[in-house]
Amino acid sequence: MRGVYHGELESITGGLAQMARLAASAISRATTALLDADLRLAESVIAADDRLDRKQRDLEERAIAVLARQQPVATELRTAVTALRISAELERSGDLALNVAKLARHRFPDHAVPNELHATVREMGNVAQCLMAKAADVIVTRTLETALELQGDDDAMDDLHRALFRQLMDDRWQHSVEDAVDVALAGRFYERFADHAVAVAERVVYLVTGSYPDSISAP
Amino acid sequence: MRGVYHGELESITGGLAQMARLAASAISRATTALLDADLRLAESVIAADDRLDRKQRDLEERAIAVLARQQPVATELRTAVTALRISAELERSGDLALNVAKLARHRFPDHAVPNELHATVREMGNVAQCLMAKAADVIVTRTLETALELQGDDDAMDDLHRALFRQLMDDRWQHSVEDAVDVALAGRFYERFADHAVAVAERVVYLVTGSYPDSISAP
Repeated sequence: MRGVYHGELESITGGLAQMARLAASAISRATTALLDADLRLAESVIAADDRLDRKQRDLEERAIAVLARQQPVATELRTAVTALRISAELERSGDLALNVAKLARHRFPDHAVPNELHATVREMGNVAQCLMAKAADVIVTRTLETALELQGDDDAMDDLHRALFRQLMDDRWQHSVEDAVDVALAGRFYERFADHAVAVAERVVYLVTGSYPDSISAP
Repeated sequence: MRGVYHGELESITGGLAQMARLAASAISRATTALLDADLRLAESVIAADDRLDRKQRDLEERAIAVLARQQPVATELRTAVTALRISAELERSGDLALNVAKLARHRFPDHAVPNELHATVREMGNVAQCLMAKAADVIVTRTLETALELQGDDDAMDDLHRALFRQLMDDRWQHSVEDAVDVALAGRFYERFADHAVAVAERVVYLVTGSYPDSISAP
């Protein structure tokens, strides 16, 4: 019996990694849509979010089924509980990629992001995508070192977020209030996306060690 | 044995309702701090968030302990799983109240919200506080009707959020880019806070019925 639910937990873990890879792809494509004012790409990111939502429900139901039918203990119990939490983080990060894509759609055919901010926003998209791809690896490999690395990587996102706000608040800001608001919201979406990737890694640390990294608050 | 863990689950449920009431109080006080530029009140909201974080960890650990030691089934299993999800929603809503308080602190002694937007922001604070107070009731009473009511109440928040953005984007906007960005972010914090209250109610619907309300996506 143990063999059967062990296999099911491995399959759920694989599904979580797939969700993380979908989220990483979504934020990357949403960033391109935002910077290029590419409506078709934005629409495709928006449509794809439904897949992440369905995946989340499916994995959640399967994790609860393991809890109900197999009554796992120790590591298997923690794996099932962690799957519940990680799937919620990933579903939410998908929503944030969706929000970025919606900004692009809302402003089309205009560009939501002024040219001089493109480099910063592009880099935020890159960091977000890399963080989530790394989170996907951590889900599968459960490598503690990589999980802890994500916290450092997230500092890069915080720096970019601060840089973006400095540019917005600069007296030389030439653009509209609407531009400023859209850029500020986009910055927030990237920062939160990165937070969710870090939270996923924290959940894996909890899974491996039984406690959260000290320096990190509950996500 | 069942009697023992049944009591523990009731105690966890009481703890969740307490968290919801703390979050309702936090968003109400944060709103006053924001509108009155009251630094002392803002600091007190910021300091109080730690209590919500600790409460969340505690309830999470206790729910996992029930899963590990008592291997509950049926309603008790769903109650323990739901406690994990609800505690995370409530912790996050506390963070959003914290964010509103931080806006107030960041702009002190200035006001972050221009006078003509005070009524809208005050109403957003009221709706947020009422939604979360209702969520606290739903946690304890598990009344399906009240849980479903929250979805309607959340429409009021969406209307206020749209009204706020219309005022921001109005050509007659006289204030700084910084004001616009702060108001836009505050609007987003209230809207997300309300979403978490609705998500809590959805979790209770899941607990009572075994499925989510159809019209609502996974929070």
